[in-house]
Amino acid sequence: MTSLHDESVRGFASDNYAGIHPEVLAAIAAANGGHQVAYGEDVYTQRLQSVMTEQFGEGAEAWPVFNGTGANVVGLQSMLPRWGAVVCATTAHIHTDEAGAPERVAGIKLLPVETPDGKLTPELLDREAWGWGDEHRAQPLVVSIAQSTEVGTVYTPEELRSLCDHAHGLGMRVHMDGARLANAAASLGVGLREITRDVGVDVLSCGGTKNGAMLGEAVVVLDPAASSGLRYLRKLDMQLASKMRFVSAQLIALLEGDLWLRNASHANAMAQRLRSGVESGLADGSIRGVGLDRPTEANGVFATLPQGVADRVRAEGFRFYDWDLATREVRWMCSFDTTEEDVDALVAAVSRETGAH
Amino acid sequence: MTSLHDESVRGFASDNYAGIHPEVLAAIAAANGGHQVAYGEDVYTQRLQSVMTEQFGEGAEAWPVFNGTGANVVGLQSMLPRWGAVVCATTAHIHTDEAGAPERVAGIKLLPVETPDGKLTPELLDREAWGWGDEHRAQPLVVSIAQSTEVGTVYTPEELRSLCDHAHGLGMRVHMDGARLANAAASLGVGLREITRDVGVDVLSCGGTKNGAMLGEAVVVLDPAASSGLRYLRKLDMQLASKMRFVSAQLIALLEGDLWLRNASHANAMAQRLRSGVESGLADGSIRGVGLDRPTEANGVFATLPQGVADRVRAEGFRFYDWDLATREVRWMCSFDTTEEDVDALVAAVSRETGAH
Amino acid sequence: MTSLHDESVRGFASDNYAGIHPEVLAAIAAANGGHQVAYGEDVYTQRLQSVMTEQFGEGAEAWPVFNGTGANVVGLQSMLPRWGAVVCATTAHIHTDEAGAPERVAGIKLLPVETPDGKLTPELLDREAWGWGDEHRAQPLVVSIAQSTEVGTVYTPEELRSLCDHAHGLGMRVHMDGARLANAAASLGVGLREITRDVGVDVLSCGGTKNGAMLGEAVVVLDPAASSGLRYLRKLDMQLASKMRFVSAQLIALLEGDLWLRNASHANAMAQRLRSGVESGLADGSIRGVGLDRPTEANGVFATLPQGVADRVRAEGFRFYDWDLATREVRWMCSFDTTEEDVDALVAAVSRETGAH
Amino acid sequence: MTSLHDESVRGFASDNYAGIHPEVLAAIAAANGGHQVAYGEDVYTQRLQSVMTEQFGEGAEAWPVFNGTGANVVGLQSMLPRWGAVVCATTAHIHTDEAGAPERVAGIKLLPVETPDGKLTPELLDREAWGWGDEHRAQPLVVSIAQSTEVGTVYTPEELRSLCDHAHGLGMRVHMDGARLANAAASLGVGLREITRDVGVDVLSCGGTKNGAMLGEAVVVLDPAASSGLRYLRKLDMQLASKMRFVSAQLIALLEGDLWLRNASHANAMAQRLRSGVESGLADGSIRGVGLDRPTEANGVFATLPQGVADRVRAEGFRFYDWDLATREVRWMCSFDTTEEDVDALVAAVSRETGAH
Repeated sequence: MTSLHDESVRGFASDNYAGIHPEVLAAIAAANGGHQVAYGEDVYTQRLQSVMTEQFGEGAEAWPVFNGTGANVVGLQSMLPRWGAVVCATTAHIHTDEAGAPERVAGIKLLPVETPDGKLTPELLDREAWGWGDEHRAQPLVVSIAQSTEVGTVYTPEELRSLCDHAHGLGMRVHMDGARLANAAASLGVGLREITRDVGVDVLSCGGTKNGAMLGEAVVVLDPAASSGLRYLRKLDMQLASKMRFVSAQLIALLEGDLWLRNASHANAMAQRLRSGVESGLADGSIRGVGLDRPTEANGVFATLPQGVADRVRAEGFRFYDWDLATREVRWMCSFDTTEEDVDALVAAVSRETGAH
Repeated sequence: MTSLHDESVRGFASDNYAGIHPEVLAAIAAANGGHQVAYGEDVYTQRLQSVMTEQFGEGAEAWPVFNGTGANVVGLQSMLPRWGAVVCATTAHIHTDEAGAPERVAGIKLLPVETPDGKLTPELLDREAWGWGDEHRAQPLVVSIAQSTEVGTVYTPEELRSLCDHAHGLGMRVHMDGARLANAAASLGVGLREITRDVGVDVLSCGGTKNGAMLGEAVVVLDPAASSGLRYLRKLDMQLASKMRFVSAQLIALLEGDLWLRNASHANAMAQRLRSGVESGLADGSIRGVGLDRPTEANGVFATLPQGVADRVRAEGFRFYDWDLATREVRWMCSFDTTEEDVDALVAAVSRETGAH
Repeated sequence: MTSLHDESVRGFASDNYAGIHPEVLAAIAAANGGHQVAYGEDVYTQRLQSVMTEQFGEGAEAWPVFNGTGANVVGLQSMLPRWGAVVCATTAHIHTDEAGAPERVAGIKLLPVETPDGKLTPELLDREAWGWGDEHRAQPLVVSIAQSTEVGTVYTPEELRSLCDHAHGLGMRVHMDGARLANAAASLGVGLREITRDVGVDVLSCGGTKNGAMLGEAVVVLDPAASSGLRYLRKLDMQLASKMRFVSAQLIALLEGDLWLRNASHANAMAQRLRSGVESGLADGSIRGVGLDRPTEANGVFATLPQGVADRVRAEGFRFYDWDLATREVRWMCSFDTTEEDVDALVAAVSRETGAH
Repeated sequence: MTSLHDESVRGFASDNYAGIHPEVLAAIAAANGGHQVAYGEDVYTQRLQSVMTEQFGEGAEAWPVFNGTGANVVGLQSMLPRWGAVVCATTAHIHTDEAGAPERVAGIKLLPVETPDGKLTPELLDREAWGWGDEHRAQPLVVSIAQSTEVGTVYTPEELRSLCDHAHGLGMRVHMDGARLANAAASLGVGLREITRDVGVDVLSCGGTKNGAMLGEAVVVLDPAASSGLRYLRKLDMQLASKMRFVSAQLIALLEGDLWLRNASHANAMAQRLRSGVESGLADGSIRGVGLDRPTEANGVFATLPQGVADRVRAEGFRFYDWDLATREVRWMCSFDTTEEDVDALVAAVSRETGAH
């Protein structure tokens, strides 16, 4: 097969528009050749367990799956009886972007709560955390949070600890959607463990795809008492790879050294550069009317643009998502391969389309 | 990541113990670099559509997914209302090896029928194809067959045509599990189209993984009137890859030229060599007591071994599955990378453990 | 079996604490004796169809089921493909009181919207009515409203028409949870048709139990184009009664004459008497500190009580639900058999526990 | 509502074509009036618990539900993790007559086994009872049997004990579909306990409807260790009656005295009379060509009729089901209200249509 695309084209639409980091692709190649037992009994999946316990501590168990929705649904299902419900933010990926998979595939009831910034707090959790023992109410037994969140914010370790303690005090368990966990850790300058196991997270969806993998995530059980049946659930939820060695090899490549951190730090830095560029423009008048109402704590920048600007910037060849058409908010996402030139070009375009010239 | 395994070790356990064919791995690399729209709006998935229409004719639509269970369940679900049932052989992968995914994820009722050789016939279909309009009976609206079957047999085009015609005459649709479709086509010396669309198959699970891919299958809709909602179902069934270009590139690599055929023909030839080797041994007495009760029509050889032989051959380092412990039947599976030496070594081992020496 | 309870005891907990209206019980007895075809092919279910077309107009189809949750789930499932979602109020019974049955049994995604008074408006609907064609978003294809609502309010015909028109304009369908439809019609002084079919409701859960039946509701299809597969869905959702004649007979008893209206009008009148009693008490100081923040438009009165009052009133022998412990709001529900004496006794108790004495 | 049907007409189609036994209807009336706590916290449901422990021994727990499919699905779901499968006979009601409810509502995989007479044995169970720990195989954790069976046979206590012991030895649990449990007990001359709890049945669907109730069954947990979450499952499976007192009252009426036995014994006796009548006719030549290939052990008689006879007997006004059109087997079902005259008239009709006259 010949290459069909222009490798020099990049955008700001999503970190999953990017490809495979070269070290990850090399890992796939290194795992190739010969025969390995299928469905996870291979040496790479075995090695991944060691890598995961190095990252998350003894007893952590990793279950590689295909994608983020799969990780979330399989993980949550393993935490809940058939009558369980999950409290989450209204902005949660599981509520807004998974096509109802939690409900349809796993029979999970979601109890969404409005948040100002994509982050739940003990007080916000309490809005839906009640009614245990009442058979009419889907039993709220898990709270699911995203780190970093879908709106680019990051929980501090203290916020996580507070929320996890509160949930545990209520008899609930904590699930974390870590599709962008690496970005959160890089942002905070801590290890993966400090914002997961150490603060009380019970089950984690550990992201690989947005961190530079071709595809691959892992359900990571941090408290084995919080999860059961993953062996069976992963299969029946259609998330069990036969040639699993190639999924595991990718996760090893990201996590056994510091590739996860390099990739995430770079993406975060590009987001900061982008924000700074816009802020500078706003300060010196070369950019006008752009709102930056959300903090930039990970690899995404959210900006409110004047009428017509989004379309005009796109017309210049830039790609990004509308986040909220009503408020003209857009999302600019940086990835491991975003370059300074990419960022500066976008800032320049925003300037051209908004500034005083 | 460094390689952790011995690339010279191969076995006969399954065609998914094998790795990635070099041309497929090269295709993944060729698709890398730069940004491409996620979730299927990339140029490789677009190109895959052309490849598929070349293989299956105008109007065929391909929906790449992660794995075979995913392809089967998503495809079947797209063919059925919520009250539908699927007639299949009792040996069908969807009944025996998918952990109940069709039932649990898609709410599909299976109506299994005993067969002598893994193949359904119009008469066998009739055993469960009845009761339309009766609300107490799950409505049998689809028949699902495997080509090649799970027991190594292959439907002839005539058999397929007869079964499809019969099903259509009953108002039913036909689904084919083609995890090893390439092996069947290679065995029959026909193209993929001749045993799918041309004979009346409506929706196909087109296998890639066992044919040399890292991972990747496609739901291929051959009659658009037989399927609806695949765009949504693939997502909600958690089978939508974000970086889909890499799944599509693999399928392109297999299907745009003759790699699918080379891989399948080779695997089939190795199975024939294995069978011939055992038959020769039986003829000349160097192998004794081995039964070959099923035809070898694709890439698997099924053999009944004398008491204790399976364990002793395994003790020599060979890997293969028990198929039926009660009858001491084993399955020897060949793959695209099985060598003549591999086969001859297995025959020699069987001879050592059973023959007169 | 001998009677085990005191028939003179009534409370304000729920309209389903009441028993069977004598005319409904007589209908059960009248339908008894001899054999009738099971599962709905009996003369009573046939007669019910006529009764329903008299109430709702030609073409209306009634599908008797066991209970309200069953009616809602079966009805909604018949309106939606597997990828469909339902916009509803956060206070909706389907969201708060059905234990996740819509999600778990029917795979339906709910998109709840906050409302001030339990009623959706076109503007509120728009908050979640978007994203059609985006496979990541559960497709909002139905809006479900309750008439009367769970917080005792009633949509006017104009409000319903406006909402239905808006939904239809978006390509959505309208489902109404009519567990207390009779109370709404009685409150508005209109027929059942004027607030359902005539304003654009597509599928209705027509309540019987809270209107005086022993058990029995009906899914009523008002626009046949909005629903499919009810014959099969009712059965597979375990809502198909074998001796259906006795469910149908109850609904006939309620709906063929004016029993539905007599029962609902009486319950509503008792709620008005209760509200008036409290309001009078507040006016003359015999009751203090009680808030009546929601309108009393059907058969429920919602009151906010001073600290400790709810418990003390209960200690006098009165039964009612806490609606919101945080705000000390309680619900007093009246039913077809609530008496003026019951109401006056409750008002007197509230006075004793709150007033100046 | 006036009566619309002819109370003198009865048939042999099904025991659920019959109505309500007068004592059961009287119980409904006795439970009426006043208010009782909804959803099972009433005195009748409390009393039912005592009645059930009298019938089944201390510790038995009864959970009333609406219908037999509901009882089976709720009970089975309470016995299984999400990855569980149920071994049953191919003739089982859960496999053939519940529209796929176990699969669709509860995500249960069925593993049907062919039987000669509707009864499983340890050997037949073994055909599908294997593969524990293999994630590809739906885990066979429950065996479900019907007593009496769908083909009119009855397990002896010894057969039940043997099967239950075998299942328990495999780590499996035993579910019994007792829609016609009373008929089996009456046939064997034993109490309900002797063929359920005493022989090792773990969870029972205890039938009421076919025994003379209007509607109502109960999931009866005989070993509490075998079942969990029934409180929640009954609700989320839409089987929780609000005015439960009226369901419980019916079951009390049947089970607190000997009404269950009188009704079942009578129905059984009528089936015996019917069989004897046909056998006598065959012996004296007044009936010809009728096959009675299945034993008549409960209240159903299965007969194979000469070509055209079924239609001609129906043309005389008799109602009954075709059981197998291919073999011209019909089912004649007797109920609590079948009379000797009804039976004799059917025998006479069969004689008229088959005999030498």
